[in-house]
Order: sequence, then structure tokens, then C-alpha cells
Amino acid sequence: MIRLRVLGIDPGLGHMGWGVIDVAGSRLTHVAHGVIATPAKLELANRLLILHSALIGIIGQYRPGTVSIEQAFVHKDAQAAMKIGQARAVAMLAAAQSELGIAEYAPNHIKKSVVGVGHAGKEQVQAMIRRLLPAAQVDQADAADALACAIAHAHLASSQMHVAARAT
Amino acid sequence: MIRLRVLGIDPGLGHMGWGVIDVAGSRLTHVAHGVIATPAKLELANRLLILHSALIGIIGQYRPGTVSIEQAFVHKDAQAAMKIGQARAVAMLAAAQSELGIAEYAPNHIKKSVVGVGHAGKEQVQAMIRRLLPAAQVDQADAADALACAIAHAHLASSQMHVAARAT
Repeated sequence: MIRLRVLGIDPGLGHMGWGVIDVAGSRLTHVAHGVIATPAKLELANRLLILHSALIGIIGQYRPGTVSIEQAFVHKDAQAAMKIGQARAVAMLAAAQSELGIAEYAPNHIKKSVVGVGHAGKEQVQAMIRRLLPAAQVDQADAADALACAIAHAHLASSQMHVAARAT
Repeated sequence: MIRLRVLGIDPGLGHMGWGVIDVAGSRLTHVAHGVIATPAKLELANRLLILHSALIGIIGQYRPGTVSIEQAFVHKDAQAAMKIGQARAVAMLAAAQSELGIAEYAPNHIKKSVVGVGHAGKEQVQAMIRRLLPAAQVDQADAADALACAIAHAHLASSQMHVAARAT
């Protein structure tokens, strides 16, 4: 049976959602979640430092085996794309420095994996997270998205392990 | 007389230019420069790790007092904006982790400060770097841009100190 701990991350400069789950076969258990908020009035360098330090702390505390990052949707708005790129870089760097496996999933893939449809709204994702992880009591949308990203990885990892087990 | 060591950075994901100069009053001295290249075939996380590790190494070796970063031009192309955002985040993070002052200058400001006109071409910047820092022997455009960014900070810092000295 596959057992792994996944840290899901929904990268954003102002609000970076994160959530940790344990996966044992098809059973998912909530471990922790939260949102790292950085005030817009701070210098960019300080905001990035806060995000990076918090993520390194979260990785150190919960010791995930894999980080599952929501893939940045490339906006038409280049300014928004740059902000997400900055947040994503810090998340990836923290994972790579901690020598963790990194998986990336597109927003639509995550919604399809968790809710069943790729065009699900934020409320549907939150409702499904409450159903799949009843102990989590998530009320922050960014944390729910991060947990959804972790679940998407869990689903894929479980099915891949299942295929591998049948092949042997 | 103002004395400072400035690390200039021209952020890019594939090629990150850097250059270190010493400033003593109006006198500029070349210390070192280079380009950190990351192969496009590597995973993004590994490319960011290479850039970050190299910058931390450069800061540790040359111990600048300030980092002067070329401000990202916000492209119409969101994909390009995201790549520059990622490279810029890693550079800013390395500077902030090293507790250095960070200055940012727009490309046109740098060209105006170094060449005299804001719309100067790459060749003009390289030619002026060769004149201002004859010992540097720069042949990489990204390194020349990084040195130009360091010089722009040196010019501003000198003039500010001059004003401050006259005011006292």
C-alpha cells in the first residue's frame, strides 16, 4: 500500500496557500493547512523572504515526501504573471533546497481530480475538500486549493502505484 | 568619500548576468563579473536552485554592501514575464537572505545613467562598460548589463552622498 505525505501549495505573492495530507492507499488524512500572507506594503524582497522562510519552516515541521504545486495559469496580464512567477519560484526553490520531489498540476486537472469537473468553481472545491477531509475545517480558499493540489497528486500517485502493482 | 561595493544583477532564467564593482567617490573599479547559465532542459526547480546557489556563493565571495537589480520590464508576453519574475525572485531572495540593501533600476534609467541616453542599444552599453571599466574585458552582454546596473547605483549613491555632504 502506498503511503506518502504530500505538501500542496497554491502559490501567490500576497497569499500562499499550503496544506499537508497523508495518503495511505486510497485513504486521505488531513495533517495541517494554512495561508502565508505577505502585506503588499512591504518591499518585494521582504515578501519573498517571508514566503520562503515560512515554507522552509513548514517543510521542516511536517517533513513531506513530495511537494505538489498548482501550476501557474499564464495570465493575459503580464504584471499578474510576474507576481505569480515570483511566488512560484520561491515555492519551487524551498522544495528543491529540501530535496523533495516536485509535481505540478494545472488548475483544471486539480479540479477534475477533486471535484470531477475541470471547470468547477472555488465553492465546489471547498465543499469537496470538506467532504474528503472532514477534520480539516478549511475556511480559506487558498488553503483549500492547496489541499486540492495535494489530493490531485495523491490520486495520481495511488493509481500509478496500483498499475505498477498489477504489472508485477 | 563614499566607498561601497555593489553587485549588479541582470535577472534572467536562462542567463543571469552579474557584476561587482567598487565605488570610491567618483572612481569605479571592476572586481568581477560573469553569467550564470541554466540549461533549458533542466527542471525549473533545478534551474532556480542553480541560480540561487550561485548568487549566494557570489555574495559570500565578494561581500557586496548593496545589490542593484535591473528592474524587470513587464512584457506583453505573459510567459516571458513569468520567467523573468522567477529569476528576479531568486535574486531578490538571495540578497534579502544575505541582509543586503536592494536597489532596483529600470532598464532606461540604467542606459541613461551609463550611456547618457535611455534608448541606447546593447552595443552602446557594452562599449561604455569597456570605457568605464577597462580592466573588466566584458564580452557577455548579460554581464555588461549587470555591471551597468551596478554603475547606475554607484552614480546615484555618489550624487546622494554629495548632496548629503553639502547639506551638513
